[in-house]
Amino acid sequence: MNWAISRRAQQLTSSAIREILKVTERPEVISFAGGLPSPATFPVAAMEQAVARIFAGNPQAALQYAATEGYLPLREFIAKRHNVGVERVLITTGSQQALDLIAKVLIDPGSPILVETPSYLGALQAFSLFEPEFVSVPGDDKSLLPEALTPELTAGARFLYALPNFQNPTGRRMPLERRQALVARARELGVLLIEDDPYGELSYHGDQLPSLLSMNPDGVIYMGSFSKILAPGLRLGFVIAPPDLHFKLCQAKQASDLHTPSFTQILAYEVVRDGLLDTHIPTIRELYGKQCQAMLDSLARHMPEGVTWNAPEGGMFIWMELPEGLDSMEILQEAVKRNVAYVPGAPFYASNPRRNALRLAFVTVSPERIEQGVTILGEVFRAAIAKQAPQAKAA
Amino acid sequence: MNWAISRRAQQLTSSAIREILKVTERPEVISFAGGLPSPATFPVAAMEQAVARIFAGNPQAALQYAATEGYLPLREFIAKRHNVGVERVLITTGSQQALDLIAKVLIDPGSPILVETPSYLGALQAFSLFEPEFVSVPGDDKSLLPEALTPELTAGARFLYALPNFQNPTGRRMPLERRQALVARARELGVLLIEDDPYGELSYHGDQLPSLLSMNPDGVIYMGSFSKILAPGLRLGFVIAPPDLHFKLCQAKQASDLHTPSFTQILAYEVVRDGLLDTHIPTIRELYGKQCQAMLDSLARHMPEGVTWNAPEGGMFIWMELPEGLDSMEILQEAVKRNVAYVPGAPFYASNPRRNALRLAFVTVSPERIEQGVTILGEVFRAAIAKQAPQAKAA
Repeated sequence: MNWAISRRAQQLTSSAIREILKVTERPEVISFAGGLPSPATFPVAAMEQAVARIFAGNPQAALQYAATEGYLPLREFIAKRHNVGVERVLITTGSQQALDLIAKVLIDPGSPILVETPSYLGALQAFSLFEPEFVSVPGDDKSLLPEALTPELTAGARFLYALPNFQNPTGRRMPLERRQALVARARELGVLLIEDDPYGELSYHGDQLPSLLSMNPDGVIYMGSFSKILAPGLRLGFVIAPPDLHFKLCQAKQASDLHTPSFTQILAYEVVRDGLLDTHIPTIRELYGKQCQAMLDSLARHMPEGVTWNAPEGGMFIWMELPEGLDSMEILQEAVKRNVAYVPGAPFYASNPRRNALRLAFVTVSPERIEQGVTILGEVFRAAIAKQAPQAKAA
Repeated sequence: MNWAISRRAQQLTSSAIREILKVTERPEVISFAGGLPSPATFPVAAMEQAVARIFAGNPQAALQYAATEGYLPLREFIAKRHNVGVERVLITTGSQQALDLIAKVLIDPGSPILVETPSYLGALQAFSLFEPEFVSVPGDDKSLLPEALTPELTAGARFLYALPNFQNPTGRRMPLERRQALVARARELGVLLIEDDPYGELSYHGDQLPSLLSMNPDGVIYMGSFSKILAPGLRLGFVIAPPDLHFKLCQAKQASDLHTPSFTQILAYEVVRDGLLDTHIPTIRELYGKQCQAMLDSLARHMPEGVTWNAPEGGMFIWMELPEGLDSMEILQEAVKRNVAYVPGAPFYASNPRRNALRLAFVTVSPERIEQGVTILGEVFRAAIAKQAPQAKAA
């Protein structure tokens, strides 16, 4: 029997990242593909103590239905950290759910929405289920270009979705003056900003730039996550929104999963309540900074001429460009044959993909394996460039 | 600033149940309103042991990102229990999420969908975000009427959503011959069945009727839940679907929250793996059966003439009807003034609500408080009937 499915489900295709991740499950593969945080950063001992406290206290509360908005002490913790009223905070089942709720509340079929070039693949997927019209905002190696936001480009846009800090996939960070210009421009044009910030705390040198939220709390929906500072398996994110939108997001959340598991919310609160993040986050920053440097050192040693990449100041990703005309998706097949994986850049573009771009993740691979993997990638790319050269001449 | 929101978000109104639950948080209120399971049934000791095993074993796995489909051992456990292939099983963040995913995959704006009269409010809410056209299937005190499913009524319907076991809100259970007739009829008419079954294991006498799934696995999407047999605060449900639909549901799930928290999935598996449910579920059945009997006894003692109710064979709810012309929503205001709450029946109808109906939940209230609350309700209803009588004469 072929059941009739929705138009949105018909256009769902298998995710490229998902298919690649299947390959990388083989232990012999050196994977620069996954977006997983390092399990070495999970505060396991603190979690074990927190769980013990839950069972010694009132475990029934952690096991019963609870309020859609989330566990109040955790919401208060977040509100204080971001200097907003607690009534604006909604706990979500990972920040992926925040994307789904935002789409539910803000997107009608055909609604224009503005996204960065490139943008986070998981967001493009979540939004596309609600059939918007994607409008790509031009950018450079630093961020989107605020001056590109014209009345024409932004006409009717339900929101602009941005990742100012160490963006997935490029690792780039939006400079302060661009943040100010973006917020001013958005306010002028009446464009709601969605600020997705899972990596904001992961600056290698600890320097943080002000959030868009802090510059205009009534014009920004801010999305945060515990996935990169505690552990992603808890699936805990949050969204801070102006009161009217907060209320609608809560209603959408109630229909989506009633509430985020009480157990994981209380667990996270018990872990962070006494200041663990103040000592824990610096250890993640240090590890990721070292990992990034190892990757940059290996890249400098092994990449052939014509290949370029950036040097992120934080986060989990490096963005690379092969010479024009090469297709990183095709070359991936060769790399995987030699047991090295990365994520091709194309799926991160809502339109006009740069097929020569790719994303490298480096936080879960040891420096020795990074060196090994980059050596192989260098050879694979060199071969691809050599293969292209005669064609280029012929053209 | 008034941000433009989606059409679906505009039609979201505050849930009646939600507003009522706010009132019932006051400890002096005797609440027959909540749909909460009794915390006395949560297997806390088993959970504490399970958590200890997680931390003694491989806690990192419980804290890392994981597969969208869910934790494989838990999926295998469910597959075995329901006699289906594991490739059909998807773990969801509560069965509320299964409703959302089903709606995402199957409903276009204007798609007809068939629902029972009355039906589960949370399902009506989840579905309505995707703007279907609700078609109510006539029923009686036992279940929907399979013979009411005509080609005219079911034309173009994306699915029929049914709760055969101890339905929320009515507590009714669909008899065997109706299940058979429903499955045959649906097959004949090409209608996909959604079987929502959170209460199936809660038969007071332990007798279970075959699921619709078991009668036609390729024509049924089955939704199950751990909320009523373990604990709702874990937010763990599952959906069993024919392979094509399973695949689409997984894609929709990936965009919705990537995956259900690893920690709670592994925790649940560690709790149930060695057969706990075999000894645990009978204790829930016994408790709920006693609670139901206490409620029925109190009702028989205190309800005025003209008020009728059913005697469920399982689950958590009794369905009551006041004399025609009375409005249970209006009368609720009086009941709440006297610190007793229930849920009015109207919100459970997709169309033509019976305003004289109401739902009584009884598993979290002690028999003493049940007696006290029902005494008050009897007085409130008697007063409402008396108030109505002169009007009836005048008419």
